Amino acid sequence: MAKLNENYSKLPATYLFTEIGRRVAKFKSENSSADIIRLGIGDVTQPIPQVCIDAMHAAVDEMSRAETFHGYGPEQGYDFLIDAIIRSNYAGLGIERDEIFVSDGSKCDCGNIQEIFSTDSKIAITDPVYPVYLDSNVMAGRTGDLQSDGHFAGVTYLPCTAENNFAPELPKSRVDMIYLCCPNNPTGTTLSKSELQKWVNYARENESIILFDSAYAAYITEAGVPKSIYEIDGALDCAIEFRSFSKTAGFTGIRCGYTVIPKTVCGRDRDGNLKPFNPLWNRRHTTKFNGTSYITQKGAAAIYTPEGQSQVKSLVGYYMENARIIREGLQKAGLEVYGGINAPYIWLKTPNQMKSWDFFNKLLTEVKIVGTPGAGFGACGEGYFRLTAFGDRQNTLRAMERIQNDLRF
Amino acid sequence: MAKLNENYSKLPATYLFTEIGRRVAKFKSENSSADIIRLGIGDVTQPIPQVCIDAMHAAVDEMSRAETFHGYGPEQGYDFLIDAIIRSNYAGLGIERDEIFVSDGSKCDCGNIQEIFSTDSKIAITDPVYPVYLDSNVMAGRTGDLQSDGHFAGVTYLPCTAENNFAPELPKSRVDMIYLCCPNNPTGTTLSKSELQKWVNYARENESIILFDSAYAAYITEAGVPKSIYEIDGALDCAIEFRSFSKTAGFTGIRCGYTVIPKTVCGRDRDGNLKPFNPLWNRRHTTKFNGTSYITQKGAAAIYTPEGQSQVKSLVGYYMENARIIREGLQKAGLEVYGGINAPYIWLKTPNQMKSWDFFNKLLTEVKIVGTPGAGFGACGEGYFRLTAFGDRQNTLRAMERIQNDLRF
Repeated sequence: MAKLNENYSKLPATYLFTEIGRRVAKFKSENSSADIIRLGIGDVTQPIPQVCIDAMHAAVDEMSRAETFHGYGPEQGYDFLIDAIIRSNYAGLGIERDEIFVSDGSKCDCGNIQEIFSTDSKIAITDPVYPVYLDSNVMAGRTGDLQSDGHFAGVTYLPCTAENNFAPELPKSRVDMIYLCCPNNPTGTTLSKSELQKWVNYARENESIILFDSAYAAYITEAGVPKSIYEIDGALDCAIEFRSFSKTAGFTGIRCGYTVIPKTVCGRDRDGNLKPFNPLWNRRHTTKFNGTSYITQKGAAAIYTPEGQSQVKSLVGYYMENARIIREGLQKAGLEVYGGINAPYIWLKTPNQMKSWDFFNKLLTEVKIVGTPGAGFGACGEGYFRLTAFGDRQNTLRAMERIQNDLRF
Repeated sequence: MAKLNENYSKLPATYLFTEIGRRVAKFKSENSSADIIRLGIGDVTQPIPQVCIDAMHAAVDEMSRAETFHGYGPEQGYDFLIDAIIRSNYAGLGIERDEIFVSDGSKCDCGNIQEIFSTDSKIAITDPVYPVYLDSNVMAGRTGDLQSDGHFAGVTYLPCTAENNFAPELPKSRVDMIYLCCPNNPTGTTLSKSELQKWVNYARENESIILFDSAYAAYITEAGVPKSIYEIDGALDCAIEFRSFSKTAGFTGIRCGYTVIPKTVCGRDRDGNLKPFNPLWNRRHTTKFNGTSYITQKGAAAIYTPEGQSQVKSLVGYYMENARIIREGLQKAGLEVYGGINAPYIWLKTPNQMKSWDFFNKLLTEVKIVGTPGAGFGACGEGYFRLTAFGDRQNTLRAMERIQNDLRF
């Protein structure tokens, strides 16, 4: 008899955003006239840059003529896109063409990367964090069962709270894979160059690999905050980086991201020999993936023109102005807030130590605003709440008015 | 120290199409004026249907305005596409909306599906066959090492040769997962309704799951040949089906496919309880995938309009006329050929029992035609050779002239 992958049964039945959707739908059905403002899910709302629109129209037209038609492309992505990425994001950082793998999005890459590690690898994740890192490892059998404290057995959790300024401490016992998300989803905070250096040093000393998700790098506004892990000395030996066009250029519905794996990042084989991870990812990418849409890649490459860079800057600027409005609005309302300076996420401490799902209900019922309970991102997210800057200006302003005028706590 | 997934090292170093590319490049460098005709890789060459072009232009425009912008879509695909798929391909077959999962291509789905099965599942694959089924299971550790006969230990191979009319026999000892590719890549042959019934009966008696890849269903021209496994009695209990827009509508560079998992397809959990695979795939799809590009899905849905169906028919007809030209051309040249009637692949027996790589070299050097050695698809493909009907008409005709006039054997 065919057997199911039992590891899936370890995962909690309800997914965070499904549960949010269920509660909002219920509220809506009982309050049909309620004017709900959604600042919950981290999805963009503004049109993508005009350069991308133009490039995609041109690419669609190429598909309509045999002379310019594009069939299967290289699974790793077209050189026109890879070269533009290197030129714009990795100049002088020592990244080569065959170290970049274009994909249909960072979520896929973050979820799939664990496949090239041995099943008995020990993982560390920050808490709270984007759930894909953990869930994909649960599915692959790298964890034990879910414990009553909300943690999976066998996983090293690295708490990130206001108490440690959202800078995780090094793990007490060594780990093989370390997921760092910076700028962080959900806390909206970043790690300084010296904090990251501490992690790179740890990884090199312990032969660990850092899986660095910088999907929100475009939102860094302060000078000195690293956008790439490869700005840190020694990272070329121990770090894999994930980047995305989703938030940079509004590509959540168009799907494009990429993974950087320097050929100098190595692991041990069973005989103890050091071997690079890059050829394994290349093998995975060519065997289980068939390249990103040509049209999408043409659209993505367009952001690296001078005009594209200026349009991206303006798009990111729009959302970051929302972030400022939310941050200052919440502060005026008397709430304690974090993030929102180098990231489109604002992380607030719930008032009066409310549970984060209770605060969700309060916000929804009292001021008709949908946010995301911190507990949904991990046990250490309890007592926190996430709002996103991805709404439109009007709704963002209205949401802050409601919180300042009508929310009682 | 971080450890690599050792299973990857079991895979042969060179991938079939990489090796073909290497040999062609070498020949080209030594014979720079050679006029090479490529009938090797199974990639389309003709423009996609105009309805898709129009729909994708409209979708790109939607992305340029906030009011019509689309961010994250449902990971499972938009209902407009799912409903069109059901209406056109599964009417009366009992498939429901939540049993269809749209993806960025069948290769990904065929490669990923094994994740929802337990690691100790026994797999059966036809030989020769599309390499992704086997390779993805090797990577996941469901096989032993590669043996000297070209087979992996622990895998049940089902030979498909001219001797058994390319209809595999049932396995002698029971298996959990059975990969069937029909119409078959590379042999271009199909299985009759009664042959498929035999497999469904086997699967139900043995609680096995059939993984049915019908990416080439649109190329079936003969009446009575099933396009879907769900045309077979009992298949709703034991079969998962993969379909693709790649060959149907020329989407190899645009990326869209889908997987059908009826909720009645079950496996055993560790306590022996029957549980459906559908929620596991849904969990995988929502955790490690973020939906197919909205633009792509709009393009795909367009083929289900009456105009779209007529354009697809004409596109498929173009390639199938190539298939006829190749089949009859090879027969005239005195070769023994199979396939090419319900599939865009022509599978020929090499003359004088030549090794398939030797025939590759002969064809390349004597008549400058690139094809694919049968041995690249499995040990039982030795002594066979694949040509594809995806070239343009002119080149297909010229290739047959060369084979008839200039190839000596």
